[in-house]
Amino acid sequence: MHAIYKKLESFIKIMNYKYLRPMIDVIVIGYGNVGNHLVDVLFSNNSVNLKQVYNRSIEKINHLASKISITNSFDKIFDADVYIITVSDDEISTVSEELSIKNKLIVHTSGSVSMELIASKRKGVFYPLQTFTKNKEINFKNIPICVEANYESDLVLLEKLASLISENIYILDSFQRKKMHLAAVFVNNFVNHLYHVGHTICEENNVPFEILHPLLEETLRKIKDIDPIDAQTGPAKRNDQKTITSQLEQLSEAQQKIYTSLTDSIINTYKNHG
Amino acid sequence: MHAIYKKLESFIKIMNYKYLRPMIDVIVIGYGNVGNHLVDVLFSNNSVNLKQVYNRSIEKINHLASKISITNSFDKIFDADVYIITVSDDEISTVSEELSIKNKLIVHTSGSVSMELIASKRKGVFYPLQTFTKNKEINFKNIPICVEANYESDLVLLEKLASLISENIYILDSFQRKKMHLAAVFVNNFVNHLYHVGHTICEENNVPFEILHPLLEETLRKIKDIDPIDAQTGPAKRNDQKTITSQLEQLSEAQQKIYTSLTDSIINTYKNHG
Repeated sequence: MHAIYKKLESFIKIMNYKYLRPMIDVIVIGYGNVGNHLVDVLFSNNSVNLKQVYNRSIEKINHLASKISITNSFDKIFDADVYIITVSDDEISTVSEELSIKNKLIVHTSGSVSMELIASKRKGVFYPLQTFTKNKEINFKNIPICVEANYESDLVLLEKLASLISENIYILDSFQRKKMHLAAVFVNNFVNHLYHVGHTICEENNVPFEILHPLLEETLRKIKDIDPIDAQTGPAKRNDQKTITSQLEQLSEAQQKIYTSLTDSIINTYKNHG
Repeated sequence: MHAIYKKLESFIKIMNYKYLRPMIDVIVIGYGNVGNHLVDVLFSNNSVNLKQVYNRSIEKINHLASKISITNSFDKIFDADVYIITVSDDEISTVSEELSIKNKLIVHTSGSVSMELIASKRKGVFYPLQTFTKNKEINFKNIPICVEANYESDLVLLEKLASLISENIYILDSFQRKKMHLAAVFVNNFVNHLYHVGHTICEENNVPFEILHPLLEETLRKIKDIDPIDAQTGPAKRNDQKTITSQLEQLSEAQQKIYTSLTDSIINTYKNHG
């Protein structure tokens, strides 16, 4: 008896989940890197009703027309539960003003813009912390999504939406998000540029960049076990001036500036650290 | 008949490999990060006879005495096929002079020191391209080992030795190795320091650094599919001066220098790139 009851209970739960829970109506505004990937993941999710995609240039979203309503006019925007603005940081405020939507939740997807810049009573943030490249498939499940809202009920709504596409949801306020975005610039954007510098040096000297792959993996793996401050190695850590001077001589002016700023910072870090 | 012959042939090969191939006698000079890990991997390898470990300070290698001969005197160094000098770059030349070994192969393990600095007729390089941290176990199999020698027969010997502990062997001359080591400083040492900067910013603002882990993984994963130059994102790539100014204001002086050098370089790279 008990087992049957358990089975029934779980069946009701599934029914509830699949059929009774209301779909969340979403409209995505903007079709850049973030908008592009959000449209993909929201469209393919059964618990989300992606009602419409807006983009200033209609040509870029024409290919969506067969499956989703598209528009390039703010006057023709439908009614929805959440409007996700994915335009560039500078345009978030203006776009939220042009969206003449009353009493609906409007969120942006930016790491560095304050929630307050959204011109709406109900506002929030839905920030997927990931580096998006167009035409590169992304598995949203592992992408942390940072949410924020000025009403508790809207925070719940955003958490629900986020949990439909990702397993890592964080509630961060605008200040924390701004700081995390700043940290991300160092560990993602700047790290990628260092990869580029290394790639260039290899290419110019007929060294296959692939030799360095295991090293890159180990560099990343290490800091999951120990703090980066304890994982540092290299000429700057040893304050090995002979190598530092010799390496500086081999670099272009821009590379020298990068080398010097990082070397100085490493030397200073360990002067104080140990 | 043919199958039996094949089996016999492969049996002879195995016998040859296991019993007839002479062991390589190796002596490791120096017991720092690299020496430490090399001693571990060479000692546990059945095809290598790790005859002796030298270290200036005998206290640091006393724990090895029960299984390997140890010494802190160059006069007591044994005879061997290969002497691997793992001391710091500045001391390689002096140590190779003090090693009064005639007609044996002496190699160093440095990425940035020329082979020519070894005071010996037969010289070479045995450079494992990896970041070694003491007390952190390393799987040598995936570590690329770059070898070089001034005699063809010694190059063969080093390739054989390298292939016993790693699956990735590269023959690079001193110039290429120097350049690869330079590239490694950017993609390993400097990347780790950027991780440290990101970690610091998170800690100071009560943001768990772990939120950033999936981003770091994706940053690395991406450049295995596309060149780093095509994977760049962020405020500098967009030349988003508003975000750049706002982020600079949040940083310490040392962090600002790092931020500026990398941002300027990214802006210039994409000005010329497209």
